[in-house]
Amino acid sequence: MITIASDFGTPYPAAMKGVILRRTDARLVDVAHDFPRQDVRAAAFWLREVLPYFPPAVHLAVVDPGVGTDRAAVVVRAGDHALVGPDNGLLLPAARRIAAESAGSDGRNDGEGDVDDGDEDEAGNDEVEVFEYAYEDPDSATFHGRDVFAPAAAEVHEVGVDSLEALDAVSPASEFVDLALPEPAVREDDETGRVLAVDGEVLVVDDFGNAITNVPGALVRGRDAVTVNGERVPVGESFAAVGAGERLVTVGSHGYVECDVNRGRGDEAFGLAPGDAVTMQFD
Amino acid sequence: MITIASDFGTPYPAAMKGVILRRTDARLVDVAHDFPRQDVRAAAFWLREVLPYFPPAVHLAVVDPGVGTDRAAVVVRAGDHALVGPDNGLLLPAARRIAAESAGSDGRNDGEGDVDDGDEDEAGNDEVEVFEYAYEDPDSATFHGRDVFAPAAAEVHEVGVDSLEALDAVSPASEFVDLALPEPAVREDDETGRVLAVDGEVLVVDDFGNAITNVPGALVRGRDAVTVNGERVPVGESFAAVGAGERLVTVGSHGYVECDVNRGRGDEAFGLAPGDAVTMQFD
Amino acid sequence: MITIASDFGTPYPAAMKGVILRRTDARLVDVAHDFPRQDVRAAAFWLREVLPYFPPAVHLAVVDPGVGTDRAAVVVRAGDHALVGPDNGLLLPAARRIAAESAGSDGRNDGEGDVDDGDEDEAGNDEVEVFEYAYEDPDSATFHGRDVFAPAAAEVHEVGVDSLEALDAVSPASEFVDLALPEPAVREDDETGRVLAVDGEVLVVDDFGNAITNVPGALVRGRDAVTVNGERVPVGESFAAVGAGERLVTVGSHGYVECDVNRGRGDEAFGLAPGDAVTMQFD
Repeated sequence: MITIASDFGTPYPAAMKGVILRRTDARLVDVAHDFPRQDVRAAAFWLREVLPYFPPAVHLAVVDPGVGTDRAAVVVRAGDHALVGPDNGLLLPAARRIAAESAGSDGRNDGEGDVDDGDEDEAGNDEVEVFEYAYEDPDSATFHGRDVFAPAAAEVHEVGVDSLEALDAVSPASEFVDLALPEPAVREDDETGRVLAVDGEVLVVDDFGNAITNVPGALVRGRDAVTVNGERVPVGESFAAVGAGERLVTVGSHGYVECDVNRGRGDEAFGLAPGDAVTMQFD
Repeated sequence: MITIASDFGTPYPAAMKGVILRRTDARLVDVAHDFPRQDVRAAAFWLREVLPYFPPAVHLAVVDPGVGTDRAAVVVRAGDHALVGPDNGLLLPAARRIAAESAGSDGRNDGEGDVDDGDEDEAGNDEVEVFEYAYEDPDSATFHGRDVFAPAAAEVHEVGVDSLEALDAVSPASEFVDLALPEPAVREDDETGRVLAVDGEVLVVDDFGNAITNVPGALVRGRDAVTVNGERVPVGESFAAVGAGERLVTVGSHGYVECDVNRGRGDEAFGLAPGDAVTMQFD
Repeated sequence: MITIASDFGTPYPAAMKGVILRRTDARLVDVAHDFPRQDVRAAAFWLREVLPYFPPAVHLAVVDPGVGTDRAAVVVRAGDHALVGPDNGLLLPAARRIAAESAGSDGRNDGEGDVDDGDEDEAGNDEVEVFEYAYEDPDSATFHGRDVFAPAAAEVHEVGVDSLEALDAVSPASEFVDLALPEPAVREDDETGRVLAVDGEVLVVDDFGNAITNVPGALVRGRDAVTVNGERVPVGESFAAVGAGERLVTVGSHGYVECDVNRGRGDEAFGLAPGDAVTMQFD
């Protein structure tokens, strides 16, 4: 199985599929091809939240603002999975999550643990191996998805994740670009240890307009309301907890706090965009 | 085979696919993931028009404004097909259509029958069985598509549509939410029985801007023109029957009258949105 | 394998897939369903650029402004591939490219040959066979994708590309609608033969806003800058060659010169739309 993710829109991903299907009869599954253009961080977030649900697979992912420069191609092995893409950090958060889950510790943020044990990045480090994938510059300097990464993913699939060192093009990476999604800072009462507030940020805005933050759900679960950037907002178990058009915060399907509007767009109602700071204060 | 439909956009459906593929190697076919957000009626219409074309399959469909509330999950068996989704009526129009076709009576509106025999809803009732699918609340209150319905669809696929009662989670539904798409009202001349007019409504607007009504095509076929909400409009066999930018009514691929514009948007030209009344008068 | 391309948006292509899957268990691969509406030329371009990357397959493609008129259906055989769709020229550029590549001459524009040898249209002619596919008018005059072309593609797949003449519905086309994408005109110095300028046009604008011209990449490769419609613009190996928001021309993944903006929309910055003339002058 090969999953495919990119910011290519259409029809470019079809060319990648053709290239792959000339080399393997693997099952192909699209993850998304409408990731925000050239936004490595947003794509890294989505890959981390989606890829761990798959059975062992080769995951081809290309969000690649450096295409045509001398940035390397990498293959990352995590548990029984391999991830193939540009060396810009895109694959690392997902790889670490997959590795942590493969190792038996459920690295997925279930919104119930403490903030401080959210260190799945480190938890998965032992299990993540980064390889450089050597390639010659193709004729096209702008579509390595088709000309470099698609053949690489097919090759990795055919040789097998366990045996990818057998590929001539593959060698251990002496260095690679890393990426860690930002972690929120929790402010506690010095004496009681009670959590007073958290300084987080918006990681991405999804298709619904939900502004997904990096604040773990555990911090809001069970509360009636929180103060978001100075305004008090109800906490809901689901969108239906408030009337149509009203704001709320929920714990999204990824375990993080979202700023939402029932049947509306949370990003607009809260005035939030990716990267914006979100401070939540608790009673 | 498992078909998948939702209003989730991307990349959420990919997580559903991962969950399914951990449990089965069934073929997966996307129906659509851009149904109008939380619009159960529109999605019910599209499912009814599309799913009957498939060979026997499990159809996973999630448009679910009540996610996180105590609404039940259902599995609906119709002929050799099963439909899995929330208990909000979404699945019933498609299930009845499939059942009617499985029973040999072509329930699909071919636009040639009378209005009054358009009762495929009742025609299919004997063949449709609704089961409740019991589930425990997952950690996430907002993504039952991934955490409840995707595993359910995989489970139904693996046990087989004929044997779905064998699943522990499945039991006959004592009650369920039903949904019937609105039927038009035909006005006839008392003496001659000639059809004078029909009071229908817009069911959905498709990607082209075609305003699809619930008026059966038989009422306009063979006419040169009809009066739509007071304005006379030509009837065309196809868009090309009028010049670019001109209005017409056609019988769409689903057998219903559409208000269209050749190379333009019918919804805008006619001023029609889903739910709007459409009265057609005949000479 | 059957690839599917259209301008149908969603969920109409799902009905096509259902129809096909009732007739064959072929692998289905979506090429795109968001081609510009009813724009045969744009779709012909994309099909030509994408389909040749696939292994032997049946390619179903429907962009069909003449649906419901008496336009014929065609099956085009090119090498080990067959293309199925309306008789409006849509399939011919892709078929000729595939045939040329099957014949061993790399018909794909690699941006390195001369302008004048870009005659892949003629190169592939011997290998392209056009058949008419006879069909009876289906109930629906507006969705031949589902009612005519999808069954035809399944039928061709099942009988095999080599044996498609065995189908009753198939006969050699005595005539068919042809389509050739426009070729640019090169102006050379009479004495030295040096290329002074090229008069091309924008073929399509892609999802990124890149304005893709018909000017071969070889004309700009190795230059620092060119003058595009009177304004001097740098030539970049990749988008990253200029700062964010700045204009450049690149050689796209299809081998043609694109008018681009790094992290922006080239069509807007250059004021270019499909069909617009693009004159490039060289120092």
